[in-house]
Amino acid sequence: MPGNSIGERFKLTTFGESHGPALGGVLDGMPAAVQLDLDRIQAELQRRRPGQSKLTTARKENDTVTLLSGVFEGRTTGTPIGFTIPNGDAKPGDYSHLEGQYRPSHADYTYDAKFGTRDHRGGGRSSARETAARVVAGAMARQFLEQLYPQGPAPAVGAYVERVQDIAMPSPPAYYDAGTVDAHAVRCPDPDTARRMEARILEVKKAGDTVGGSIVVVAKGIPPGWGEPVFDKLHADLAKALWSLPAVKGLELGSGFSGTLMKGSEHNDAFTGKSGSIRTTTNHSGGIQGGISNGEDIILRVGFKPVATLLTDQNSVNQAGEDVVLSGRGRHDPCVLPRAVPMVEAMVLLVLADHALRQRSARL
Amino acid sequence: MPGNSIGERFKLTTFGESHGPALGGVLDGMPAAVQLDLDRIQAELQRRRPGQSKLTTARKENDTVTLLSGVFEGRTTGTPIGFTIPNGDAKPGDYSHLEGQYRPSHADYTYDAKFGTRDHRGGGRSSARETAARVVAGAMARQFLEQLYPQGPAPAVGAYVERVQDIAMPSPPAYYDAGTVDAHAVRCPDPDTARRMEARILEVKKAGDTVGGSIVVVAKGIPPGWGEPVFDKLHADLAKALWSLPAVKGLELGSGFSGTLMKGSEHNDAFTGKSGSIRTTTNHSGGIQGGISNGEDIILRVGFKPVATLLTDQNSVNQAGEDVVLSGRGRHDPCVLPRAVPMVEAMVLLVLADHALRQRSARL
Amino acid sequence: MPGNSIGERFKLTTFGESHGPALGGVLDGMPAAVQLDLDRIQAELQRRRPGQSKLTTARKENDTVTLLSGVFEGRTTGTPIGFTIPNGDAKPGDYSHLEGQYRPSHADYTYDAKFGTRDHRGGGRSSARETAARVVAGAMARQFLEQLYPQGPAPAVGAYVERVQDIAMPSPPAYYDAGTVDAHAVRCPDPDTARRMEARILEVKKAGDTVGGSIVVVAKGIPPGWGEPVFDKLHADLAKALWSLPAVKGLELGSGFSGTLMKGSEHNDAFTGKSGSIRTTTNHSGGIQGGISNGEDIILRVGFKPVATLLTDQNSVNQAGEDVVLSGRGRHDPCVLPRAVPMVEAMVLLVLADHALRQRSARL
Amino acid sequence: MPGNSIGERFKLTTFGESHGPALGGVLDGMPAAVQLDLDRIQAELQRRRPGQSKLTTARKENDTVTLLSGVFEGRTTGTPIGFTIPNGDAKPGDYSHLEGQYRPSHADYTYDAKFGTRDHRGGGRSSARETAARVVAGAMARQFLEQLYPQGPAPAVGAYVERVQDIAMPSPPAYYDAGTVDAHAVRCPDPDTARRMEARILEVKKAGDTVGGSIVVVAKGIPPGWGEPVFDKLHADLAKALWSLPAVKGLELGSGFSGTLMKGSEHNDAFTGKSGSIRTTTNHSGGIQGGISNGEDIILRVGFKPVATLLTDQNSVNQAGEDVVLSGRGRHDPCVLPRAVPMVEAMVLLVLADHALRQRSARL
Repeated sequence: MPGNSIGERFKLTTFGESHGPALGGVLDGMPAAVQLDLDRIQAELQRRRPGQSKLTTARKENDTVTLLSGVFEGRTTGTPIGFTIPNGDAKPGDYSHLEGQYRPSHADYTYDAKFGTRDHRGGGRSSARETAARVVAGAMARQFLEQLYPQGPAPAVGAYVERVQDIAMPSPPAYYDAGTVDAHAVRCPDPDTARRMEARILEVKKAGDTVGGSIVVVAKGIPPGWGEPVFDKLHADLAKALWSLPAVKGLELGSGFSGTLMKGSEHNDAFTGKSGSIRTTTNHSGGIQGGISNGEDIILRVGFKPVATLLTDQNSVNQAGEDVVLSGRGRHDPCVLPRAVPMVEAMVLLVLADHALRQRSARL
Repeated sequence: MPGNSIGERFKLTTFGESHGPALGGVLDGMPAAVQLDLDRIQAELQRRRPGQSKLTTARKENDTVTLLSGVFEGRTTGTPIGFTIPNGDAKPGDYSHLEGQYRPSHADYTYDAKFGTRDHRGGGRSSARETAARVVAGAMARQFLEQLYPQGPAPAVGAYVERVQDIAMPSPPAYYDAGTVDAHAVRCPDPDTARRMEARILEVKKAGDTVGGSIVVVAKGIPPGWGEPVFDKLHADLAKALWSLPAVKGLELGSGFSGTLMKGSEHNDAFTGKSGSIRTTTNHSGGIQGGISNGEDIILRVGFKPVATLLTDQNSVNQAGEDVVLSGRGRHDPCVLPRAVPMVEAMVLLVLADHALRQRSARL
Repeated sequence: MPGNSIGERFKLTTFGESHGPALGGVLDGMPAAVQLDLDRIQAELQRRRPGQSKLTTARKENDTVTLLSGVFEGRTTGTPIGFTIPNGDAKPGDYSHLEGQYRPSHADYTYDAKFGTRDHRGGGRSSARETAARVVAGAMARQFLEQLYPQGPAPAVGAYVERVQDIAMPSPPAYYDAGTVDAHAVRCPDPDTARRMEARILEVKKAGDTVGGSIVVVAKGIPPGWGEPVFDKLHADLAKALWSLPAVKGLELGSGFSGTLMKGSEHNDAFTGKSGSIRTTTNHSGGIQGGISNGEDIILRVGFKPVATLLTDQNSVNQAGEDVVLSGRGRHDPCVLPRAVPMVEAMVLLVLADHALRQRSARL
Repeated sequence: MPGNSIGERFKLTTFGESHGPALGGVLDGMPAAVQLDLDRIQAELQRRRPGQSKLTTARKENDTVTLLSGVFEGRTTGTPIGFTIPNGDAKPGDYSHLEGQYRPSHADYTYDAKFGTRDHRGGGRSSARETAARVVAGAMARQFLEQLYPQGPAPAVGAYVERVQDIAMPSPPAYYDAGTVDAHAVRCPDPDTARRMEARILEVKKAGDTVGGSIVVVAKGIPPGWGEPVFDKLHADLAKALWSLPAVKGLELGSGFSGTLMKGSEHNDAFTGKSGSIRTTTNHSGGIQGGISNGEDIILRVGFKPVATLLTDQNSVNQAGEDVVLSGRGRHDPCVLPRAVPMVEAMVLLVLADHALRQRSARL
């Protein structure tokens, strides 16, 4: 299928450009009988919304989602859920100077190279604005997962900003709930680190520059058995989903690159049955072995590059391939990380929901 | 579809267990009229073959591939290419002690958790042996890509071992041809580094232990325009393909995690038209912008954990969840990296071939 | 993927219930640079619209489509085209008596059996109203196909009502343009047959009863080479697409069932090169041989059952499985065929557009 | 995906040409823990085998299937099942006269039109010989379905020849077991009709000509709820699967075309709860309503054209488009229907197994 769908059994298809009439999507495969709390969906959209703090772009969007189908009397019916999010504060005129020019490290040139044409207004389809539809679908995936085991501990997925440029959390990856994470605008759960990150972002913003960093996401309460070898390994599908987000430069699972410095005798996660169930005493594996969840926390680290939109002059070319100097304009984020937290959660939730359903056909 | 296929238009489906009668696959979507050189396919299999040097497992396999369909008088016909690779030196008896026990950081437990059963002989389907089928298909993808632009520079994909544990190449990622890479058994193109890596691997092997490291893969000659936003971005599909290999712990594109420490003004790749075509003066993007190739080298770094099979005793559990001590036995690699080089190339080649075909429907 | 998408490279995903806020869809894979005439899309929707003549349901719907993305300055951009069609004249109250009861030969019972729940208002997702989104996408497919060969004869797809109950066209299947077909409300191009069909439908309507019949669809100007053996044969994909329409009971290709009465020596289509290109002297094959188009007209006949909604009393059961007598109410069509003509065309157009793109990867 | 796979969760991919080294396939998605009886799989292949009676082609093939993976100690493991069927009695030399010529109503011309090349030996990939792999996979699907409800009545699928040319069964479609059907070489369960059919086939064979007819297939014991609206309706997927078989010209579900002559009041299937469960008093629907099974017998009729290979001279063209006279040679079936019975069953079984698994994600 073309590139705007993700998932096998729990499948999201999205559409929409940054400055068109609306964004939206279709979530097909949501099982029937899930109670959908619309306020919680809207609340997740608010976490991704531009203009939520001085750390983010000044674009003002209410980002109100409207469900068009698939829900009846508050519960899903098993039919596809169509939804739209209107673009309110579109200012396409802001981008007219970009019509024939390519912004460095943006998708302007490559879209033209691919399609022979592009909607240049605000990056068109390549804008991070398209992730709003992912957050809506991720919020629905979360509610599905929460209702999956009425008796057991609910699966939970939480992300946070671990590092902004070189300012990093002092503690190893762990699960934090959204309340703790959102206590600071930068979405780092450690108060002291959060303050230093925010100062850095504002300083960089003042200079018209941008910074990147890393986000950690932890999924807990995932039962053993999710993931389909050999190509649709759970972490392979998570990797694809996370790498499909804008600005991703690196990904680690569990021990990550630091694990590649260890010896096997140090890195292996010993099993123990002492607790009455099969667990590992360490979790270098990051909750996945052989592509299948093992019941431990799934731990991933995602690196994001500094935002490519600058408010300074840059060397570039126009469509004719002639060198030009591009002047910085438009609204943008000095650091994508705070708003990327709900995007990262959404992608992980979508993959987990998909594999929750896929797992149902593993056995007679 | 279930998890044993990869690709949309250039699709590989594989089958086979470590100690069953044969491995194999079906490559569907290979265009007609590609001249297939079987010797080159076989040669790539030899690069992956166990027992090729003292750095690898002692298992002896000829790994001879037989094509069963889709090729007529030396050229592809457009119909699916079925192929098999018999398992020769299978010693399933070596694994009988594992029938009821779970090896740490292997897929033994998770396969049981998923399927309620498993073929315990040598890891069954979870064995890295299944990648032989990928290497065959990757070798065919390579020949397709080479013949795609008879006039232009042929796309080329080359991987090499950049680091074993903490012993790393002194130079940044670059393209090296297979001859240079294969000059040393460890598949590091820098002679001095290669010698030190080999010494480390033999030292670790002697101790019954294992080490990991990283592989760099570079694709050059890829035209601008490949990749399908927003979910099937070129690097998202590459990420999935590479993370589907056994033992992967981390992945970086272009500047990778180190790029997340830079400011936007440092990280952006300025465009220039000086050469007569649109190029970038740096390549922090790693050849992909907005999920679409931009014509620069595609550069990825893959981190591999130390092999989980040890020749020492380890704490583990049996199927009943009781603690046991597992004694190390069987044949294995002290370091997966030299043999992973052709696997990494194969996965990149498969994704590129797929997007070469997908790109054909981008425009009227 | 779940069941609400169709197509590999030209893929439509639809959503929407009969009495929800809106229907809609996402068309992903439309190539860039297609000039889209919105008036023509809307005109095709009008052909499917309820309330267009006394032969159809009294439900009044403007059926106005809104495009939300994927089109910029009148041309497609290669990004997904999202669209919605609001439900205007929804009267869900008309269906409250059906909440706990199952209408015979409708999908009420089977939706409950599958999902454990259903939106009972007007059939919910099972209503033929969902085909509005198909007609929109089919109209876009038509414009793509028309622009595919600027030099050559444009592919054209035309359907018409061949038979209502036992009143049938006196002539064999052939291509008729929309103007000729639409000259009569019943959409039969033969004036005398059309008049008799219309009289029959009105007579049956008066009795609160319904009738079925058959539609012929012809695609001309399709070049040889479209279709992918062995499972995605062109007629296999056409069959799936057409059988996915409501009320279909039978399908024939070319000579159809009557061809199964002939001997091979009578049925084979002899080739001749007399015209300067390779053609067949007869067309029992219906334009497809071995699953691939051969350049002759593609000819299909689709049989539709009489509409299941009656205005008379019927024996049925309620959700508890108790026998009840169901009284006929609500708005409905006495004969689905006139409005099914644009639906049939849409499904054929979608499949052809998909295979037009798939064909592009057949050769090196 | 390219065209040689079928199924979403229970997916068969096939490969192989008529005169290559082997046919085969990969069945991915078979759940773990199914007991596989290899003798029964082989027995189903024997039903499809050439040379089984004087009614079929003289080609002699043992058609012995070898399973290469996915089965351990007699039970499926959940991993893909690879299998091969060697081509024994290949006589490619018999076809050398066809290298540059196109047989009428075969796929010779269209394969060349698509791929620009073809394997001309015995039709290559377009030969009905490729259906052997389908029969193997269908036989495995049957065993899966039989073990699906250990307590309940097992789903069963039975096909038979209903009509050869104009010689037809006197009774309406019904389920017959394989023993009854196979009592006559022609696979018609009515002895008198069978004898007349066999006489007709031999008479036609003597004249070097061929005949077609129709096959009925009935699936019983299918629970309500299988099938995924709106595009993957159960009968839409069945239609695609059946139309993917060679030589199909028509398909009917339940009442079929004769149902299109009835009024709604005659055609509707009244529900009744008298038996303690919800059933219909008639079955014009053919077991499927709104694309979802309703628990009644699923009844389909498939029309097959007369075999295109004749032993008489025919007008045709060569690759240069010049008129030629083609002389009849080679081995072939005078009537495809007896051997098509297991093929039809296989396709229905594959679709049912797929939807059995897909249904598992319909509800929370």
